[in-house]
Amino acid sequence: MARSEYLTTLCYLERGDSYLMMHRISKKKDINKDKWIGVGGHFEEGESPEECIKREILEETGYDIPLDEIEYRAVITFISDKGDYELMSLFTAKAPDSEPIPCDEGVFEWVKKDEVYALNLWEGDKIFFKELEKSDKFFSLKMRYDKEDKLIEAVLNGRNIL
Amino acid sequence: MARSEYLTTLCYLERGDSYLMMHRISKKKDINKDKWIGVGGHFEEGESPEECIKREILEETGYDIPLDEIEYRAVITFISDKGDYELMSLFTAKAPDSEPIPCDEGVFEWVKKDEVYALNLWEGDKIFFKELEKSDKFFSLKMRYDKEDKLIEAVLNGRNIL
Repeated sequence: MARSEYLTTLCYLERGDSYLMMHRISKKKDINKDKWIGVGGHFEEGESPEECIKREILEETGYDIPLDEIEYRAVITFISDKGDYELMSLFTAKAPDSEPIPCDEGVFEWVKKDEVYALNLWEGDKIFFKELEKSDKFFSLKMRYDKEDKLIEAVLNGRNIL
Repeated sequence: MARSEYLTTLCYLERGDSYLMMHRISKKKDINKDKWIGVGGHFEEGESPEECIKREILEETGYDIPLDEIEYRAVITFISDKGDYELMSLFTAKAPDSEPIPCDEGVFEWVKKDEVYALNLWEGDKIFFKELEKSDKFFSLKMRYDKEDKLIEAVLNGRNIL
């Protein structure tokens, strides 16, 4: 199904003042190799954004979070000069008390919200964290990366911010 | 470009207590034939949702609305038992004072917000209007239509509402 290529989801699971971050060190070939990211993945047939992220959270962490407790926070349009296009739905959700199950895509760690900026992140992901902390208001962000994965355009709610 | 098939946008342009509605009576073959809908269409290469709707508004009405004055209100997941899938971004925006240019897809009319429900609408579109009026909060709605275009599933922010 062609649509799964560019319809994706990402969720930052929260516990107190921390986010659950995955250090992508497990797979040899990984576009996110060595980066820290949230939980998420590609849409499967007929899924809504929240159904996709609910399934991905369950698969990657073992957490079975009710659909109506997952907060839809943003839509991110990724463009890359390598030719990639991705429309990503960004969510947050409160994590249950249990620890996540091991995931074969990386290693989980709880990272304090004000310390995530020091991690090896995609440059644009820092914008997500800043906006998520700033307010509860939904936002739309378009980002363009060049062929060397450098962020060269960022438009937040229709305004250039780079 | 395959993505354009199912990435779409829709905008209700507002003026005072009215929405700009298009009566789709112009095209012979039209999935929306005789229905009243907003302005919108399919994504073009590399567009963000707001860039798509800005272009569609300009093409269909002649209104050149700044990107940051278009409000992102909802994401709608359409499934149809006919096999269709669509991820639609729903917007509202204030219309300028001028009248829209004629559009070859239908005939425009300003319709009072509390009178839109009496129009020949897609059943699920009534849910959009209700939610847009209820609050400014972004929402996510999944809808499923059967082969006779009857709405058989509606899940609002993860909760069944049908």
